[in-house]
Amino acid sequence: MYRRELLKPDGRRLTLYAHAPLEGDIAAPSPFAEPLAGAPHLRWHPLRGEWVTYAAYRQGRTFLPPPEYNPLAVTVDPANPTELPDAAWDVAVFDNRFPSLAPVREGAAPVPSMIVPSAPAAGQCEVVVFAKDPKGSLGALPLPHIELLLQVWGDRTEQVGQREGIAYVLPFENRGAEVGVTLHHPHGQIYAYPVLPPVPARMQQQALAHWQEHQRGLLADHIQAELRDGRRVLYQGPHAAAFVPVCARYPYEVWIAPIEPVRDFTRLGAAQRADLARALKTVLLKYDGLWQRPFPYLMAWYQAPTDGEPHPEWHLHAQIYPPYRTRDRLKYLAGTEIAAGFFAMDALPEDKAAELQQVEVRI
Amino acid sequence: MYRRELLKPDGRRLTLYAHAPLEGDIAAPSPFAEPLAGAPHLRWHPLRGEWVTYAAYRQGRTFLPPPEYNPLAVTVDPANPTELPDAAWDVAVFDNRFPSLAPVREGAAPVPSMIVPSAPAAGQCEVVVFAKDPKGSLGALPLPHIELLLQVWGDRTEQVGQREGIAYVLPFENRGAEVGVTLHHPHGQIYAYPVLPPVPARMQQQALAHWQEHQRGLLADHIQAELRDGRRVLYQGPHAAAFVPVCARYPYEVWIAPIEPVRDFTRLGAAQRADLARALKTVLLKYDGLWQRPFPYLMAWYQAPTDGEPHPEWHLHAQIYPPYRTRDRLKYLAGTEIAAGFFAMDALPEDKAAELQQVEVRI
Repeated sequence: MYRRELLKPDGRRLTLYAHAPLEGDIAAPSPFAEPLAGAPHLRWHPLRGEWVTYAAYRQGRTFLPPPEYNPLAVTVDPANPTELPDAAWDVAVFDNRFPSLAPVREGAAPVPSMIVPSAPAAGQCEVVVFAKDPKGSLGALPLPHIELLLQVWGDRTEQVGQREGIAYVLPFENRGAEVGVTLHHPHGQIYAYPVLPPVPARMQQQALAHWQEHQRGLLADHIQAELRDGRRVLYQGPHAAAFVPVCARYPYEVWIAPIEPVRDFTRLGAAQRADLARALKTVLLKYDGLWQRPFPYLMAWYQAPTDGEPHPEWHLHAQIYPPYRTRDRLKYLAGTEIAAGFFAMDALPEDKAAELQQVEVRI
Repeated sequence: MYRRELLKPDGRRLTLYAHAPLEGDIAAPSPFAEPLAGAPHLRWHPLRGEWVTYAAYRQGRTFLPPPEYNPLAVTVDPANPTELPDAAWDVAVFDNRFPSLAPVREGAAPVPSMIVPSAPAAGQCEVVVFAKDPKGSLGALPLPHIELLLQVWGDRTEQVGQREGIAYVLPFENRGAEVGVTLHHPHGQIYAYPVLPPVPARMQQQALAHWQEHQRGLLADHIQAELRDGRRVLYQGPHAAAFVPVCARYPYEVWIAPIEPVRDFTRLGAAQRADLARALKTVLLKYDGLWQRPFPYLMAWYQAPTDGEPHPEWHLHAQIYPPYRTRDRLKYLAGTEIAAGFFAMDALPEDKAAELQQVEVRI
């Protein structure tokens, strides 16, 4: 993997990644000339015991631009710059122009005091462009390209995770207008949080309790049980597995993980990474094959916090939440899910897994 | 408040509530002749440490029926029964035909064992029909009718909460196709859970810590701070208040509560109930007035668990989550909200409160 770090005219960072060395002069374009004014801030939610971030400038962010303007395409006409240069990169990562979390700038105004604790929303929001082709998809990329992306996620976890005050790095992809995506060029995001967010905090609590009781990984044990059961397995390779979990909260929910516990992307060996890429590609092609159309989803990759602790309880994995419950019906999160946090499913994971198992894919 | 309890031909309960006595013979209709087969079950989600409920028969539930069939209208033609009789009721409550949680029937088959703990999804799902008029809305009902509904929620909390194994009673309303509502007749639901669900469990934890430290209510203190600050207040009466909370997670989020702590609907005095009804009506009319169209939302009423403990830390209140962030843009819950549980807002609560403050309503 080759990496080239650049700076955009508005001060944002751009990192290009490629299989081959990136040579020659490359200028980092930006659709914006001026540095971003304003800074996001956090407010404490006392009833839920969690932070909420506020970034009022995000109201003006790019929203379903006309098809002729794609800020994630490479810049062809320097008079109309996009976010990315026309160079031989395979994957590109840059600072989000409208971040929900951002490094605190020197000389920034202090966050006004409020009736609840408040603080700068220190952190980082990055955009990860999966490939140059605006019409492709993550699942359609060749295996070596997906492997490179897994390496990029590892590099970002390392680079961003070591910055002062970053507690947790979460790579994710929202795909499809059904989940609110405004740009259809294949891309994901990385959020780097100044605190351990509620969901990974809860997962850590559960995993740690299991580790302390059994000296084994909670997810590692669960994967073995899923593989033994077999009814919901979508992929089993030498180093990686994918399955609809027995406790799926979304009808087509899938988990993908290395079989042996690996705490984060930086610790994946080459063989593990290759098999994990194959598992991921298999699942995404099954999704798109199910109804012969692009399948929307939210995919999150959970890994250990970046607090420098060893975290033997953590096990890198993806959880994918598609919004459909049947071909033409969305699953809405409503009263019980959102208000109580208690999920109600009208489909059995075994049945949904069977649907996906029947989709044949060629890799 | 008058109450009349009836039994439907398929074994489900129907309770009619009214301001005046309900006299004469009333037969409880049902669109379904046979008792429901099948029973929901719970599976344990080990990574999140929570239960998920599965009710496969719900796939066949009523979905956007043609306008001529409204199961929540009163039955006019006994050959085409709806869920409700043509009698002088004001509010009606009946067992959901497709419950996510249901009492365990005698002789029901045991839940099959799985690779995670499983159990019967013992509980109760009720439908609360707010009024006979299929075209009305909760906010448009006269104040005494809304007061009656608050009494009904109290009666349901008492009736259902005292049943064996019920740990938590949650009344809520999903309003609008944007949040997945399939029947537009004004109605809400009540879920009665066999366990304390994750969100109220978390709220209880936070409130209890505050109570133990200060011997005061967390929400009671927060309400006083909101009223002193004043910038986000939408209603302040002698006994109730409504405001956009300083830590809103949805752009038009509103909380409504009695000013003095009351642990659940059963403990509201008449004056508190009347003022709470006025606060609720004010907020809902402001919502509908904002863009001069019905305003979708999810409204949940949080109250103390029904475990028989005194729960001085609990404070009955509503949290309302509308899905819009501007007149024509929905707020999608995406990567950071769903995967991390960390909410990102692109609007300031002060600005959204100002929009709602400017909407004048007549009560």
